[in-house]
Order: sequence, then structure tokens, then C-alpha cells
Amino acid sequence: MSRIGFIGLGIMGGPMAANLVAAGHEVTGYNRSRAKVDRLVQQGGTAAATVAEAVRGADVVVTMLPDSPDVEAVVTAEDGVLAHLPAGTLLIDFSTIRPDVARQVAEAAADKGVRMLDAPVSGGEPKAVDGTLSIMAGGSEDTFAAAREVLDVVGSTIVHVGPAGAGQTVKAANQLMVAGNIGLLAEALVFLESYGVDTKAGLEVLGGGLAGSAVLDAKGSKMRDREFGPGFRLELHHKDMGIVQAAAREAGLTIPLGSLVSQLVAAANAQGDGALDHSGLLRQINNLNGRD
Amino acid sequence: MSRIGFIGLGIMGGPMAANLVAAGHEVTGYNRSRAKVDRLVQQGGTAAATVAEAVRGADVVVTMLPDSPDVEAVVTAEDGVLAHLPAGTLLIDFSTIRPDVARQVAEAAADKGVRMLDAPVSGGEPKAVDGTLSIMAGGSEDTFAAAREVLDVVGSTIVHVGPAGAGQTVKAANQLMVAGNIGLLAEALVFLESYGVDTKAGLEVLGGGLAGSAVLDAKGSKMRDREFGPGFRLELHHKDMGIVQAAAREAGLTIPLGSLVSQLVAAANAQGDGALDHSGLLRQINNLNGRD
Amino acid sequence: MSRIGFIGLGIMGGPMAANLVAAGHEVTGYNRSRAKVDRLVQQGGTAAATVAEAVRGADVVVTMLPDSPDVEAVVTAEDGVLAHLPAGTLLIDFSTIRPDVARQVAEAAADKGVRMLDAPVSGGEPKAVDGTLSIMAGGSEDTFAAAREVLDVVGSTIVHVGPAGAGQTVKAANQLMVAGNIGLLAEALVFLESYGVDTKAGLEVLGGGLAGSAVLDAKGSKMRDREFGPGFRLELHHKDMGIVQAAAREAGLTIPLGSLVSQLVAAANAQGDGALDHSGLLRQINNLNGRD
Amino acid sequence: MSRIGFIGLGIMGGPMAANLVAAGHEVTGYNRSRAKVDRLVQQGGTAAATVAEAVRGADVVVTMLPDSPDVEAVVTAEDGVLAHLPAGTLLIDFSTIRPDVARQVAEAAADKGVRMLDAPVSGGEPKAVDGTLSIMAGGSEDTFAAAREVLDVVGSTIVHVGPAGAGQTVKAANQLMVAGNIGLLAEALVFLESYGVDTKAGLEVLGGGLAGSAVLDAKGSKMRDREFGPGFRLELHHKDMGIVQAAAREAGLTIPLGSLVSQLVAAANAQGDGALDHSGLLRQINNLNGRD
Repeated sequence: MSRIGFIGLGIMGGPMAANLVAAGHEVTGYNRSRAKVDRLVQQGGTAAATVAEAVRGADVVVTMLPDSPDVEAVVTAEDGVLAHLPAGTLLIDFSTIRPDVARQVAEAAADKGVRMLDAPVSGGEPKAVDGTLSIMAGGSEDTFAAAREVLDVVGSTIVHVGPAGAGQTVKAANQLMVAGNIGLLAEALVFLESYGVDTKAGLEVLGGGLAGSAVLDAKGSKMRDREFGPGFRLELHHKDMGIVQAAAREAGLTIPLGSLVSQLVAAANAQGDGALDHSGLLRQINNLNGRD
Repeated sequence: MSRIGFIGLGIMGGPMAANLVAAGHEVTGYNRSRAKVDRLVQQGGTAAATVAEAVRGADVVVTMLPDSPDVEAVVTAEDGVLAHLPAGTLLIDFSTIRPDVARQVAEAAADKGVRMLDAPVSGGEPKAVDGTLSIMAGGSEDTFAAAREVLDVVGSTIVHVGPAGAGQTVKAANQLMVAGNIGLLAEALVFLESYGVDTKAGLEVLGGGLAGSAVLDAKGSKMRDREFGPGFRLELHHKDMGIVQAAAREAGLTIPLGSLVSQLVAAANAQGDGALDHSGLLRQINNLNGRD
Repeated sequence: MSRIGFIGLGIMGGPMAANLVAAGHEVTGYNRSRAKVDRLVQQGGTAAATVAEAVRGADVVVTMLPDSPDVEAVVTAEDGVLAHLPAGTLLIDFSTIRPDVARQVAEAAADKGVRMLDAPVSGGEPKAVDGTLSIMAGGSEDTFAAAREVLDVVGSTIVHVGPAGAGQTVKAANQLMVAGNIGLLAEALVFLESYGVDTKAGLEVLGGGLAGSAVLDAKGSKMRDREFGPGFRLELHHKDMGIVQAAAREAGLTIPLGSLVSQLVAAANAQGDGALDHSGLLRQINNLNGRD
Repeated sequence: MSRIGFIGLGIMGGPMAANLVAAGHEVTGYNRSRAKVDRLVQQGGTAAATVAEAVRGADVVVTMLPDSPDVEAVVTAEDGVLAHLPAGTLLIDFSTIRPDVARQVAEAAADKGVRMLDAPVSGGEPKAVDGTLSIMAGGSEDTFAAAREVLDVVGSTIVHVGPAGAGQTVKAANQLMVAGNIGLLAEALVFLESYGVDTKAGLEVLGGGLAGSAVLDAKGSKMRDREFGPGFRLELHHKDMGIVQAAAREAGLTIPLGSLVSQLVAAANAQGDGALDHSGLLRQINNLNGRD
């Protein structure tokens, strides 16, 4: 069992930390909002009042934060994680951030002798609670091996996809494909509806062939029914498409479809739909077509 | 058992007609190239030298032709199918054509008392040979019911999706989604490769989550290996995207992603890749990025 | 002076025919709506009750019709213009239609010994009234020379741009660039406004440099003021973008920006803005951004 | 006459500094490459070995640097411009950078009592040499007025477009429109060429109507002749489109055409055309179409 410092106890980080406690680890948690730390204490964890306190004496430090600047601030800042970690410690970042920032943070960690893994997850709150997240990990083989005892608690599909930053790259590719698939499904739906097709039967036959996808399975009938209740919020997908575009630019890449779907997601956000599930992108396609 | 007039014995129509013969139907076939008619005769069918000869005395007429103008020429032209069919006959068009043309042809058929079904298929040559095509049928309930004895021989997933033209609409939506999914996967692959990610592991984890799709399952590893051997040719998908765009314009619809992917498919075609499998769209995305 | 049969006396054709009368030509006009023919008679022309009547005895036949199918119907149909014209007559089509249709009609004319010029115009109703249209003419040098006496009456910038169809090709390119320039200006305006820039000063400096354009000069300040009173209607530009896309597909071309701006124009139309001036495309860009 | 500290003596900054010397100002210049400082000395300026030395005792400090991080490094860094300037000094930044960075730097300057103007220019090296640049200035009225004695020396069209950052916003809009206009012209050219139109005559008539633009006037015939000799390099326009996209995201804006043209510029860059004039974007459109 390990002593784990856990920073970032939000919607995702909270249940992940709880699962680590339940698995027998000694977890000390820090979060800007004290209420979330209290909940961890009730679940058997220990409270930390500062980042420094959370990471003191830890074998493993885990971060689960909203965006690239947050990870930079918490990990590499003057009084941040790296300032307090001895060489040899393991640092796992579950946040979804820019691949180039992930690489820079990993280099800063390496300079201190700290082994780092970027390990963004997919699956959302339900899978965080169940400990069945998908995890895309970037870092050395050794670091990945060392992290397995933590990864195995929070995830079920756990894949090592390459060196530092590779986890974030795969996560970015994931978000690009998911947004694109939602957009294509939205266009197909508008197309079918405008021609008066039976969309229930239509989606059934589409889903059974080469047009089939996890997005169609998970979102198709909800999109037909205009049910966009919270799941993965459009505003978060908008943030993630920003990562995709920044990473493409960083690598000198052209991704025309990814770029266009980013624009559509940005439009949905600008029109006030940021709090909907990302399948709510259908509303944007409908709007373009003067429909509901 | 029925007497079937079958017009269009190409890569798809040939095996479909053979399966109808094998199922015990009396099939009279016509094709512009005589060699294909001869093959049907060897398989137990009867040769026709003209469209008129093929449809004379038939209970059911089947067409499987390349594009909208071909269907118009064969069905509604002066000496075409409708000129020779008595009221009450059943006409099944398996071709992939424009929804509005399908509706017009169905109306011309109705004027003659001929019941028509638009029934485009997906699955390609292998499933045509196996009799396991997916079929999206448009027409009245009665016509669909009457056509089942033929449809059940050539297909396994057979869905009635709405009135005349609806089959073509769903097929167009299918082609839109498939092209889009290939394009997105191509962009994701270029993205992963440019960042030095292990793409085998990367595609595995992408395929297991919300980014998963039939395209990724069927084409992912071939695209990694740059294997674009014949399957569904890009030049046919280019033709189909023309149908998608024409149908969108006909309905006054905006489909931004579909429109952009149409442009990418057109570019691939213009660059000489028309004979590759449609997954060869990856070459176009690579080319945009100065890569192979 | 010539005897001219003029078919299509609408918003553009009406004043063009009147100018030809005023220039001393003997003009016999036909239009589906009789009121427009009566107006020509008041202006000194002669009424025709049918196409046949209009073209009988004419040295030159002029057509000014809404779209490709209209030109096909009037010129090549069974009782159309070509059925009544002797060899050697000159046929000038001022309509904006598809380049490939223009070529086909020119070939049908050539088969009858009729010399044809495709001569689409730009400049709108005011320049039609003033006889100062821009004319892009396609056809042989001889035909162009023969047509000058007519062209000089209705236009001021008159350029021979190539063989049959070339006039329509240039007109299509014109509509592509104009729609694109309006779209870009709309995006620039939204950008400036959202940053609180003084847009009057901003457009002034933009107009004075490499970003300057006829669109900015003619439409910039009206777009700032949200004045979209009738000029060239969006729904006509939507029709023209259909020609652009059909012509690109016919030639196997990829035009990504043209394709995207077509989608934006289609969206504006779908949202009910078809009757606005095409600068009203700004409303579509604003809408995408949740703005007015 | 003023004492001016001038930082950044490159292709643009060099002649601008020389013009300030020629106008009677006392100019102390700094550049990372010493050779460029020496040239200024030959032209009558004074050499500085560090930023601190350049700005010491200056009434006005001028910066002309490649990109946002350069301006941040030179102006706000620990030993940067602001560390050495007394309150009341005037700071003019002629660089093209992100509007939000311009605003942040202006705020940092204001904290020190330094008045700042963002004043990006357009017109390229020839107009820098002639002192006839277009200048888009953002800052307070007072600061703009105080800067006029410098601005009037280097530019001829000088417009105050709003508060801090507004100059950069207008410059970004300029670059968006210019890239878009080049892309549209490229698509129009490919379209005309593929149809065998006389492009000289075609561009003439396009340029005379609503499709006319400064880009067509300046680049049209060169693009016809495939002359892409150095002017404004594609790689710089690629950098500027990065600013456009970052600024759009910062403001929560959707700019679909700007986003697509950014992708085309990025592709041209990825394909190795970065050193060509930006009109070389034609090569990218040709490439998409399998043409030269």
C-alpha cells in the first residue's frame, strides 16, 4: 500500500481518491474548496491545508485538475508539488491538458528526479465512481509499471501509449473524434428528419453498418428525443477542442475536420449551450438549418 | 417463386442475381456488357438482349445501376422498364441514387400502377456474394411486404425506413457518416503519428471508448499500415458525396462537416487516388500535412 | 439596326430590352407574365405571345432567364428557340447558368448553325437600367464581334473571356469571390465588435490596405449599421453558389473556401434571410456567435 | 526631437529606425544580432549592448519584434524595458502580437506609469523603407496624440482604432481578410484554368466588379504566372493566423472561414512553402486539385 498525495478532489478527482482509500491506500487530499477535503476525510482520507502538506512524505502524488495552467501552477510553481518532492517519487497527472505542457512538466519533474506519467482518463463521473475509467498513459515503461497499482484502482482499460505527453495526445485525438462523430450524427439526423424518414428505423440500420459508432449507440436516441441532460458538458468539450487545436498548431499540423468541428462547438458555446451534454451540438446544426 | 427481370449485372448485381437463381427464382438478366449476362446463364439464369426482353412477363423487376441518370434512362426512358410493365408489377431499385430522383421515378411508376421500392444496400461485394447485405428500403408498407421474398435472399439486415426516397436518404446519410468517420480517423492518426505515439496502443484505447466506431474497427489497422487495397473505391464514395450534397441542396440544408469531407474526398479523387479503398482518404490528410 | 427577339423581361431583362429599343433596335419581347410584355410595348417594343412568335424573323435572339432549366426549356425544348431559328442567327444568353449547361446549349445551337454567346452580367438592376452592366462573354471571336452592337447597348465593361461556357465560368468565379469576401468581412466585423474596437476607424484602415475590396467599399458601412435592404438577394446568391458547386464537381475540382461559404449562404437562406441583400450574411455569422 | 530607444532592428525595424534618425531624432538601437546595430550606427544612430542601455534616458521606447513571447520577454521580463523606464515615458510596440497579450503588456506598463500604444503596421519592407506604412493604433487618445511625432515618420495612413489591444485586433482582422482573399482568388483561378478560360481577361473583368480587391490587384497576375518571390512570407502569415485563432478563442468567437483558411495556410507551411510570398497559397489549392 502507498502513501498518496491527491490534489484536485472535484467531480472526477473526488471519487477517484475515495476509491484509492477504499483499496487500502493512505490518501492525503488537498483541494481549494475545503468542503471537498472534508468529504474525503469522512471517506477515510486525511486532510491537507496546502499542496506542500498533501505531498509531504508521499510515495505517489496524483493530480486531477481542470486545465493546463492549473497543472503548471500546482506542479511547477515556486511552492508547488516539485518543490516538495524528493527524487524517486512518482507523479501521476490525470488531468486533460495540452500535450506540450505535459511534456514540459514531465521534463521539469525529471530535472528533480521525479518520475511522471500523464494519464488522462475518459468515461466521466459514473466510471470515476465505479473505478472503471479508460486511461491513456504517457511516460517511460518503468514509470508506467510503477503506477499500475494506482491505475488499476481507478480504471479498467489501461493502455500505455508512448513517452511523456503521449497520453494527452491520445486523449486529444479522442476528443477530436468524439466531437466529430457527434457533429456528423447531428448532420445525418437533420438530413433524415428533413426528408421525413423514420429516424428510429434509420438510426437502427445506420448503427448496424459501417456508419456505426459508440456515439451513435450512446447518444443517437437521446438526440432524436432532444434530451441533452448533463453528461459531458459542451463547455468542457470546447476547452478540449482548444487543446486539440493548440496541439495541432504546436506540431505544425492541419486537421481540417477537427478545425471545423471546433468552430461548431465554439458556436454552440457562444450561443449559450455550454452546460448541455456535448450531444447538444445537434442544436447548433439545427439552428444553422433554421430548425429545432 | 417469382419471375424476376434483373437489370445491371455488375460487381454487386451479378452475385445478387446469382443468389436469386440459387434461391429458386426464375431470373432473366440484362446487362450492357454481354459477358456478364453469359455468366448469369451459366449460373442458371436466362439471357435478355434488351431491357424490354428482361422485363417481359416478370412479376418483379430489379435494377442495380451505377448512378441516377442510369436509373432514369433504364426505368423512365421511352423504351425503358415502365414502358413494358403491366400495372401491379413490383419494381425494386437497389442502386444508390439521389433521393429526389428516387421519388420522381417512384411517381412515374405509380402513374403506371407499378409499385416501386428504393432499396440501396451497403456491405460491398463480399456481402453481395454472401447474401448478407444491409438494405434500407423506402416505399409503402405493402410494397415493402411484397418485396420481402426478394430482399430476404440478398440481405440480412433489412429495414423499412419510410416512404419512397427514404431508402436513398438513409443511404446518403450513411455515406456522409462513413466518409466523415474515415476523415476524422485519418486526422487522429496523423496527429498521433506526428507526436510519436504508439498508434497500435493508441487506436486500441480509442476504439474501446466513445471514439470507437465500425470504421475504426474495420479500417484502423489497415490505415496504420497504409494498406488501401480495393474495397469500396474512393471514386464511388466521391459519386455518393455528390448525391449527399445534391440532396442537401434539394432540401435547403446546411451540412458543414459533410460538405468539407466531400471536398476532401474530391481532392483525393483529383489527386489520382480514386481507385483506392475509401480509407485511402488518409493519403489526402497526410498530403495536406506534407507527410506520407 | 437589328431585329431582336427578347425572351425574359424581368427585373434585369425589362430594362435591358428597353435600352435596346431606345438604341433604335426593333425589339419583339416575350415573357410568361403578360404585364411585362405590355410594358415593353409602351416603351416602343412589339409583343409576342409565344417564344416562336418572338424569334420569328429575328437577326438576334436574346434570353435573360432565372436558371439553367429555364434556359434549357426555352432554347432547346421541342417548340423552343432553336426549333424556329434559321442557320446564321445570333443567340445571346445573358442568364447566369451552369457552365456545362451553357456549353451543351451552345453545342445544340451549333448543330443548327446558330451562333451562340453566353454573356452573364453583373451590376444588378441599377446598371441594367443605366446600360452599364459588366458582361463576361464566352463564345467564338466572330460571335463575340457580331454581338457587340447589342452588348455595347446594355453594358460598359464587356470582356471576351474564352470559348462557349467561359462567360458562365467567370461569372461563377465572381459569385464565389463575392460571397467569400462578404463572409470574411462579416467575420472581421464580429471580431472587431467583440473586442470593442471603433469599427468605423477599423474598416477605414482595413479598406486602405491589402485587405481592401470592392465588397468592403460597397457594403462595409451598411453592414456596420445592419442595413440589409434589397440589393442582390441572398436567395439568388444561394442559387448561384449551387452553380459554383455543380460546376466544381463537374470539373472534378475541390474549392474548400467556396464550399464552406456556400454552406453559410445556405444556412442564411434556411434561417429565412433569403430576401435580404447578400451582405445580410453577417446575420448568419452573428448568429453563430450568439450575437445580433 | 526625442530621444528614442529602438529595440528590434530587423527587416522592418531597421528601416523604421533609420527613418527616425533621418527625421532628426536621437535613436539608440538594440538588436540581438550586433550587425544590425552596426548598420544603425552607420546611419547616424547610437549602439546599445543591452535592452537596459537602449532605453536609459529615452523619452520614447519603440519595439518591433517577431511574436507575442518576444514582446513579453523584452518588455515585462525581470531585466526588461519596464524595469528601466521612469513613469511618464511613452512605449510604442509596432510588433504584430496577440490582442490579449497587448492588453496585458499595456496593463503592466500602466502599473509603472508608462503610457503604451500597440501600433502594428502593414505594408511590408518597401513601405517601411519609404516611411509609408499603414498603422493601426490602440491606446488612449492622449497616448496616441503623444506618439504622433514618431508615427508620422514611419507611416502615412495612421488610424487610432480604440483602446489598448485594438490595434492588434484590427491587424488580426486584416490578416484574416488578406489570407481569405488570397485563398478565394486561388480557388477562382484554379476554377477558371480548369475550364480553359482566358485568365488574363477573366481576372480583368473580375477585378472591375464586386469581386475586385487589393489582393487581386497586387497578386492576381503574379499568381497567374506562378511568381511567388519573397514579399510577405507564408510562414509569417501562418504565425499571424495563429494570433487570429487564439484571439478568436480568447473572445469565444466562431470564425469558420478564418478557421478554414488558417488550415490551408498551415498546410502550405507543412508542405514546405513557408518561404514563399503568401500568394503561394495558390500552390496548396492547386495541390488539392492534383494540379500545378
